[in-house]
Amino acid sequence: MKGVIATTSGVDLWRLYPPVFGEHAPELTVLRPEDVADKSEVTFAFTFRPPDDLFEGMSNLKAIFSAGAGTDAIMACPSRPAHVPVFRVEDADQALQMAAFATFHVVWHHRDIGRYVAQQAHAEWSRAASGFSAEHRRVGVLGFGHMGRAIAKALVGLGYPVAGYARRAPEPAEPGVEHFHGDGLEAFLARTDILVNVLPLTGATQGMIDAALLSKLPQGAALVQIGRGGQVVEEDLLALLDAGHLSGASMDVFETEPLPREHPLWTHPRVLITPHVASIPEPRFVVQSIRERLSSL
Amino acid sequence: MKGVIATTSGVDLWRLYPPVFGEHAPELTVLRPEDVADKSEVTFAFTFRPPDDLFEGMSNLKAIFSAGAGTDAIMACPSRPAHVPVFRVEDADQALQMAAFATFHVVWHHRDIGRYVAQQAHAEWSRAASGFSAEHRRVGVLGFGHMGRAIAKALVGLGYPVAGYARRAPEPAEPGVEHFHGDGLEAFLARTDILVNVLPLTGATQGMIDAALLSKLPQGAALVQIGRGGQVVEEDLLALLDAGHLSGASMDVFETEPLPREHPLWTHPRVLITPHVASIPEPRFVVQSIRERLSSL
Ligand SMILES: NC(=O)c1ccc[n+]([C@@H]2O[C@H](COP(=O)([O-])OP(=O)(O)OC[C@H]3O[C@@H](n4cnc5c(N)ncnc54)[C@H](OP(=O)(O)O)[C@@H]3O)[C@@H](O)[C@H]2O)c1
Ligand SMILES: NC(=O)c1ccc[n+]([C@@H]2O[C@H](COP(=O)([O-])OP(=O)(O)OC[C@H]3O[C@@H](n4cnc5c(N)ncnc54)[C@H](OP(=O)(O)O)[C@@H]3O)[C@@H](O)[C@H]2O)c1
Repeated sequence: MKGVIATTSGVDLWRLYPPVFGEHAPELTVLRPEDVADKSEVTFAFTFRPPDDLFEGMSNLKAIFSAGAGTDAIMACPSRPAHVPVFRVEDADQALQMAAFATFHVVWHHRDIGRYVAQQAHAEWSRAASGFSAEHRRVGVLGFGHMGRAIAKALVGLGYPVAGYARRAPEPAEPGVEHFHGDGLEAFLARTDILVNVLPLTGATQGMIDAALLSKLPQGAALVQIGRGGQVVEEDLLALLDAGHLSGASMDVFETEPLPREHPLWTHPRVLITPHVASIPEPRFVVQSIRERLSSL
Repeated sequence: MKGVIATTSGVDLWRLYPPVFGEHAPELTVLRPEDVADKSEVTFAFTFRPPDDLFEGMSNLKAIFSAGAGTDAIMACPSRPAHVPVFRVEDADQALQMAAFATFHVVWHHRDIGRYVAQQAHAEWSRAASGFSAEHRRVGVLGFGHMGRAIAKALVGLGYPVAGYARRAPEPAEPGVEHFHGDGLEAFLARTDILVNVLPLTGATQGMIDAALLSKLPQGAALVQIGRGGQVVEEDLLALLDAGHLSGASMDVFETEPLPREHPLWTHPRVLITPHVASIPEPRFVVQSIRERLSSL
């Protein structure tokens, strides 16, 4: 079968993936879109942020594979044929990456590691005297799917009081987690000192994390944004940090990526910025699952 | 019963503890050593780094309680009566604090967060393209007691390949952990990309983490030192970082604390310094366990 690899930003799929297809799915041919003479020969596409016209002329397309857990940019691509199934990456290894990354940021905020990083620049030795137990920070996981569950499990194991929120009650309930759903959002926010967002980007979640939502967190709360850019209203976040309502934020995804050089988030003293690195699936797991899917279509 | 509270450095026990004794063990009187008229009335001491002469004249001392997991400074105190039992803090909550803190540093090194912190200062967006899975960093936990086991459990849960080392094989074995003991130290180090040290300070572990030991780690390994100062030979660590054998280090405890302002560790670009904050037990758990111990003596 012949497929194309194309994305407009993020990890360079073309640099990373061809050798992995070669090793783990040698029967599949992958090309750059510009190297395909006859688009009707293309049966699958592998992409993350497709160029607008990627799917034009692909009259025999059988499947579209996302290179990540999110499919938002693919769903929004104007040339996407609506009848072709879109598959996301859903592997346990990537969920554990998210869990490790989220745990890192929960500890960063709970234990105030940013303060120690700043102190190190002045060879200053001073420290908090209390508040070290996990019981002092209630974590709330917003979005309780594949990623949210793995994050909650890790934090429950470390003794943090953890709650989760989704529109529907997740099945099965996760041991040790206080579940909120539906109209429980306010109650969920009111008991959350560190909010970890792992919602998918949809019409409903676009701009959802705004001043109104953040204001419902208790005074001094922190935000860990590892969902998708566009969900957090960045000006609102900055305003609430400056007003002292929020104590800090970890931001991994942004409205515009790369985050523009002049963006005020870069220089905010209580914001930790990472360049969309919460998790990236291992190429061999991705290719193996594409191979399995294609053979079952 | 009458007790004294005294320590020469670290968290100010006198500021933190009297109200907790008042609430959770009202039958116990705690005083500063200088406020005790007759030292023979003192039946217990609560300390972390006792002044050299603390125990002088305490002829009716029944127990010495450490305010932390380590008892090294107490054991080394010249006025300590050898026949009086010394008790350490050993609570599950503190072990979870250690596990969260160790996990933080493992992710810091594995995911190269120090690079992103440095990049943020220049509004620079660039990132690693691969190596995100936990399978890429083999963690080794040196010292496999109360703390080591909790750390290993958390990291196994996140998918890291974890090994442990102690003099004897720990009982029971920890699921998912590769155990080394006795003369297995070299083999343990040879398979360890991130070495987490949680040994107690003893004659044998003083200066144990020196150039010879660190050289047995693979090229590019990182050190997380959350055991006790005096175990890592700091000049050796700096030399191996500068030679490029080690990629980084997290240092929480030091030969001299507070770390002197002029110490080269402060300014090393690949060393993250925290001021002995890996874990501090919750005062109410400590007081509750002192109360139980005293009533059973
Ligand atoms: N930063 C990164 O590197 C990175 C890496 C991987 C993934 N991610 C992000 O993480 C997202 C989640 O991944 P996943 O695998 O966990 O997805 P998933 O398994 O589909 O789970 C999504 C969860 O969100 C809930 N949800 C959806 N819409 C909601 C709404 N409007 N209000 C409240 N809850 C809502 C869902 O439950 P209900 O349907 O019941 O509401 C479900 O619990 C991805 O879409 C991606 O954007 C980011
Ligand atoms: N930075 C901080 O804030 C902080 C906080 C809490 C604790 N700590 C440190 O962590 C240390 C460990 O605490 P813990 O509760 O885990 O102690 P623990 O339960 O007594 O365990 C000590 C472990 O070290 C091993 N060990 C002792 N001497 C050894 C040697 N010479 N070579 C190899 N292994 C050796 C022991 O096994 P074998 O006897 O079989 O060798 C055991 O596995 C404390 O003593 C303290 O210094 C630091």
